[in-house]
Amino acid sequence: MNARPAPAWSVSHWFNADALTLESLRGRPVLLHAFQMLCPGCVQHALPQSQKVAAAFAQTDLAIVGLHTVFEHHHAMGPDSLAVYLHENRIGYPVGVDAYRDDDPAAHPLPLTMQAYAMQGTPTLCLIDRRGNLRRQHFGLLDDLRLGAEIATLLAEPADA
Amino acid sequence: MNARPAPAWSVSHWFNADALTLESLRGRPVLLHAFQMLCPGCVQHALPQSQKVAAAFAQTDLAIVGLHTVFEHHHAMGPDSLAVYLHENRIGYPVGVDAYRDDDPAAHPLPLTMQAYAMQGTPTLCLIDRRGNLRRQHFGLLDDLRLGAEIATLLAEPADA
Amino acid sequence: MNARPAPAWSVSHWFNADALTLESLRGRPVLLHAFQMLCPGCVQHALPQSQKVAAAFAQTDLAIVGLHTVFEHHHAMGPDSLAVYLHENRIGYPVGVDAYRDDDPAAHPLPLTMQAYAMQGTPTLCLIDRRGNLRRQHFGLLDDLRLGAEIATLLAEPADA
Amino acid sequence: MNARPAPAWSVSHWFNADALTLESLRGRPVLLHAFQMLCPGCVQHALPQSQKVAAAFAQTDLAIVGLHTVFEHHHAMGPDSLAVYLHENRIGYPVGVDAYRDDDPAAHPLPLTMQAYAMQGTPTLCLIDRRGNLRRQHFGLLDDLRLGAEIATLLAEPADA
Repeated sequence: MNARPAPAWSVSHWFNADALTLESLRGRPVLLHAFQMLCPGCVQHALPQSQKVAAAFAQTDLAIVGLHTVFEHHHAMGPDSLAVYLHENRIGYPVGVDAYRDDDPAAHPLPLTMQAYAMQGTPTLCLIDRRGNLRRQHFGLLDDLRLGAEIATLLAEPADA
Repeated sequence: MNARPAPAWSVSHWFNADALTLESLRGRPVLLHAFQMLCPGCVQHALPQSQKVAAAFAQTDLAIVGLHTVFEHHHAMGPDSLAVYLHENRIGYPVGVDAYRDDDPAAHPLPLTMQAYAMQGTPTLCLIDRRGNLRRQHFGLLDDLRLGAEIATLLAEPADA
Repeated sequence: MNARPAPAWSVSHWFNADALTLESLRGRPVLLHAFQMLCPGCVQHALPQSQKVAAAFAQTDLAIVGLHTVFEHHHAMGPDSLAVYLHENRIGYPVGVDAYRDDDPAAHPLPLTMQAYAMQGTPTLCLIDRRGNLRRQHFGLLDDLRLGAEIATLLAEPADA
Repeated sequence: MNARPAPAWSVSHWFNADALTLESLRGRPVLLHAFQMLCPGCVQHALPQSQKVAAAFAQTDLAIVGLHTVFEHHHAMGPDSLAVYLHENRIGYPVGVDAYRDDDPAAHPLPLTMQAYAMQGTPTLCLIDRRGNLRRQHFGLLDDLRLGAEIATLLAEPADA
């Protein structure tokens, strides 16, 4: 199987973490979950699922990273609002705010990481393997059984393969 | 049974309606659902339940009114953000923004209608009968079976009793 | 509104009750829930809903009666099997076994009460008012909100109307 | 890791399969799901989960086998009743009826495979690896995320390891 390296992240602000790069997570599989705090499918299904994953797998085995990819209604989903959302929903894993070209969402509404991954919308779930390759990208919802299996498949791969 | 008249509403902004008063709804039972757009219990349970009620009962029989009673994190839940929330979640019934004394939430964070009803938090569900009396006020969640029964009890009362 | 009197029941065996007639319940609304113990829709949805109704309404207000209307696979759903089912699922309200003509399901597989009500299958939910009239008969599932409302509508009717 | 070989099965009757032995499945991981058709936890959760697993994984990758381990109320859960249950619930994977010593459940109510695995009750979920070792035995329910992960862990192991 050949999978391309996952693109680097462009993040303007981190919650629950200091600056976090994909490189720094090398060696562990990564679940990258892109969402918007006012997207109903994200709130009802995707975020609760990420929290379930965070409870089921040790952080030292699997890294879970949220990415706030706001591409619409930017005024209502700024970092201050996101801080409230994360606090109220007790989200404890690292969450990055996807950055905009020239830091100007009015001129460039589609954030940079979302573009780099060519995401179709939110929620989008990405699975990155121990070597930093993007092995799975899924727009919409994935059931728990399948997600658990895909994570375990990456966990079963040797660290130095 | 003696029930006190439901307090009047203090609303600074309406969505999906022009200025709406309790008096103007006299003759119909009213479900008043107080919520905050970033309160998880409201988003996961209370708002979907109100939408289910809106689908199950004719508007000419029962009036459903949302009330955005923001008493914390005011900066993240202003009317502009609420507009996005209502749009994304396709909430079509009237929703009022609970007003603040002197229009100054920094000085008076607890909104006026919330105070007048002595609500304990969000979500709070109020049932008001055809004559404008507050017959039920419930902080937290009520199951569908019980809510359906309480609504029908008010609907069964004669209009001119 | 004109509703016809609910047909009498033909029951060969009662669980959780002595011989129970519709007449003996006159004065209370009755929820009659017809089911088969190996019908998936009954087991997954209808029976749990009846148990929820039994928990939400006082028996002195509303009578809940199960009816085991076996019209297929008779050998697998006899009264001895039903006894186990009711025990394992902790069903405490009265349940009658719908009777067969000549007590002979091989010759007459469709039970008598099921015929008298012209039920289409299982589950079937019947609501009978205080005066013994059949006000609602529904094949399939009814959501909790609607069922709660229909029960309360019957409860709101005067006892001697 | 050392895991003991999974005990052989004692089955008196197969549904959806001819006589099936653990040996004949060697090379594939096996999900063995022990249940009773009138055990509420089995019916509400365990069987639907096995059906979900059957839909998510190819039979050529993972073998799913149900085991009807009746240790109580034997008269209500005989093979004829089980046939109806499997038919009504559209269970298409192989299901074996756990056998009794001397084929006499009255004298020996605990079936033989249940004894050999020292199962505590129903539902019990067993995961057996490609080489026939019992890697996991769980009494009660396991969430989908965890079950998916455990299955994928076994699938990731080399066939000839």
